[in-house]
Amino acid sequence: MAQKAKVLLVGAGGIGTMTAFNLEQGGLATVTAILRSNYTIVKDQGFTIDSCDHGKFQGWRPSEVLNKIPDQEPSAPFDYIICTTKNNPDIPPTLVDLISPAVTPGHSVIVLVQNGLNIEKPLLKAFPNNVCLSGVSLMGADELSPGSILQNDVDRLYIGEFVSDTMDKEKQTAAAKDFVRIYSASGKVQCSYQPDVVFVRWRKLMYNAVWNPICALTDLDTSRFRLASEDNDPASPLNLLIRPAMNEIRAAAKAAANVDLPESLVEDMVECDPIEIFCAPSMLQDRRKKRFLEFENILGEALREGEKAGASMPIVRTIYALCKAIQWRTKETSGMVDAVKLMEERKARS
Amino acid sequence: MAQKAKVLLVGAGGIGTMTAFNLEQGGLATVTAILRSNYTIVKDQGFTIDSCDHGKFQGWRPSEVLNKIPDQEPSAPFDYIICTTKNNPDIPPTLVDLISPAVTPGHSVIVLVQNGLNIEKPLLKAFPNNVCLSGVSLMGADELSPGSILQNDVDRLYIGEFVSDTMDKEKQTAAAKDFVRIYSASGKVQCSYQPDVVFVRWRKLMYNAVWNPICALTDLDTSRFRLASEDNDPASPLNLLIRPAMNEIRAAAKAAANVDLPESLVEDMVECDPIEIFCAPSMLQDRRKKRFLEFENILGEALREGEKAGASMPIVRTIYALCKAIQWRTKETSGMVDAVKLMEERKARS
Repeated sequence: MAQKAKVLLVGAGGIGTMTAFNLEQGGLATVTAILRSNYTIVKDQGFTIDSCDHGKFQGWRPSEVLNKIPDQEPSAPFDYIICTTKNNPDIPPTLVDLISPAVTPGHSVIVLVQNGLNIEKPLLKAFPNNVCLSGVSLMGADELSPGSILQNDVDRLYIGEFVSDTMDKEKQTAAAKDFVRIYSASGKVQCSYQPDVVFVRWRKLMYNAVWNPICALTDLDTSRFRLASEDNDPASPLNLLIRPAMNEIRAAAKAAANVDLPESLVEDMVECDPIEIFCAPSMLQDRRKKRFLEFENILGEALREGEKAGASMPIVRTIYALCKAIQWRTKETSGMVDAVKLMEERKARS
Repeated sequence: MAQKAKVLLVGAGGIGTMTAFNLEQGGLATVTAILRSNYTIVKDQGFTIDSCDHGKFQGWRPSEVLNKIPDQEPSAPFDYIICTTKNNPDIPPTLVDLISPAVTPGHSVIVLVQNGLNIEKPLLKAFPNNVCLSGVSLMGADELSPGSILQNDVDRLYIGEFVSDTMDKEKQTAAAKDFVRIYSASGKVQCSYQPDVVFVRWRKLMYNAVWNPICALTDLDTSRFRLASEDNDPASPLNLLIRPAMNEIRAAAKAAANVDLPESLVEDMVECDPIEIFCAPSMLQDRRKKRFLEFENILGEALREGEKAGASMPIVRTIYALCKAIQWRTKETSGMVDAVKLMEERKARS
């Protein structure tokens, strides 16, 4: 029997925990999970899992649970480092700084199960000899309370290799396919190799760059937002905002990356959440919890790429700027900026 | 000595209470004030007033305090009905329904000290033989707790007559000038007759249609919003949002009403709040209190007028749609709509 893959998983919230669980269920990997807010309770009692794919489990723990990133062991390097944290390049520490102690150059395969564009750029630069894979997850999973995970929508994971100037393409593809094999071993999930990473990422942005921030700004879940829009009202929030913003993302994808996202996707993305579940996208959940918003990679990069290529994106631009202002406020409540001090400096200058 | 003007004041929050106070201080009017949430405490203890124009007062009451609109008395009609409530045409009751019992046809002068465009339309239609005046207030005043009023920015009030097809123009102008005389009698305020109502209203929209909703959406006061924007950063929230949105209002004013708002007004409006007071515009205060947003007359009418005349207003349109979604949510929390019932109806239809 082949040796199990050694996996480091960074970010054990809803999606991260289900990722770890599925890998260990498949029997081809052992997972070391890095926990933060839920470390003590999971160390003590394990996770409580209620999963539409796997069933119910009480007291489950990955092979190893740590509360900080370990240094790499030359004799037993991590084969995969899976990052399922939020990706906030505007908030330290950067992902590169976070994971670098654990990365074995030339060996560890980095898997970014995260949303947005250009998330691989700093990693390819910092680790030019490590394969970096794109993971786009359509799973629905939340941590309801520390250590208690509800997965209410099936795990579909699209894996592909990010374009790298420094890595051998065949080696990258082989790593991606091998990861798909390991992840699929449980038999309970839908994980596939999708070489067109750029297409997959832009397509998901039609949802994430639109529903996520707009729900966060209005405090409405996607069902309520749809219910707030009367059918056939041209001035409904759906018609003024959601549909045209999705079309801005389509235009940006075409202009910036020559990605054709068919117009029919707009209605698919408007209606994709079952209306009876009142789905609160992650950015709305983050705003309700006064956490940082993952808006730079999701909105900012789409906007910068699109506008650079000549696409007109006034709605996305407006929503981006609103999120940027909200992020500043969260920095203030987190103690990263001091409004009174800045005000006094501004007054002294004027 | 001439008889005092008989005034009905509807909406005794910060601005309404200071309006009543100033009128009675001037000695040319007796005020009947309609109170709602603060009725009991004011009836009992009077208002506590801390005013930059008038000084400090404890236990002050207008001549008469009521908790509902009185019916008109044919023998002693109201000479003026001053409306200082929020104007939410999308939320019943309408202002017309609210005040109509007290209006003596052909006699009572209606004074709308309220923001936005086209607020006079339903009143001119309902009361075609009553003069309707525009009041644009630049006062800063808040009700800190029920009955406790802080006025921290001086009372400047611009009065003019709304354009009416049914009223004699000279009579309207005379009524406007007479109101200015009565309001100015205290000697403590700056009240002037400004015949160009359309100009005055569009100019104030540069602030109200921009700062108000953007602060409400981001939970930042105007000082924090400015501090969140680094000087010279083209992608700052100020440069992406506030300045271009103000220019959209300028373009709309020109297209819809041939009103020239000079470009220099943009910087005036960006900087008009003293940075050290961290001014929270009224719409931000309303959102924090989960109250309805006064967005239809302020944003909606500006958008509809501007777009009808060919102005491009993508930022204002986006912000309008976001406010509309938030308003729906407030309707839900107020019991005016039922999301679960609507969802079930929607499912049954599909």
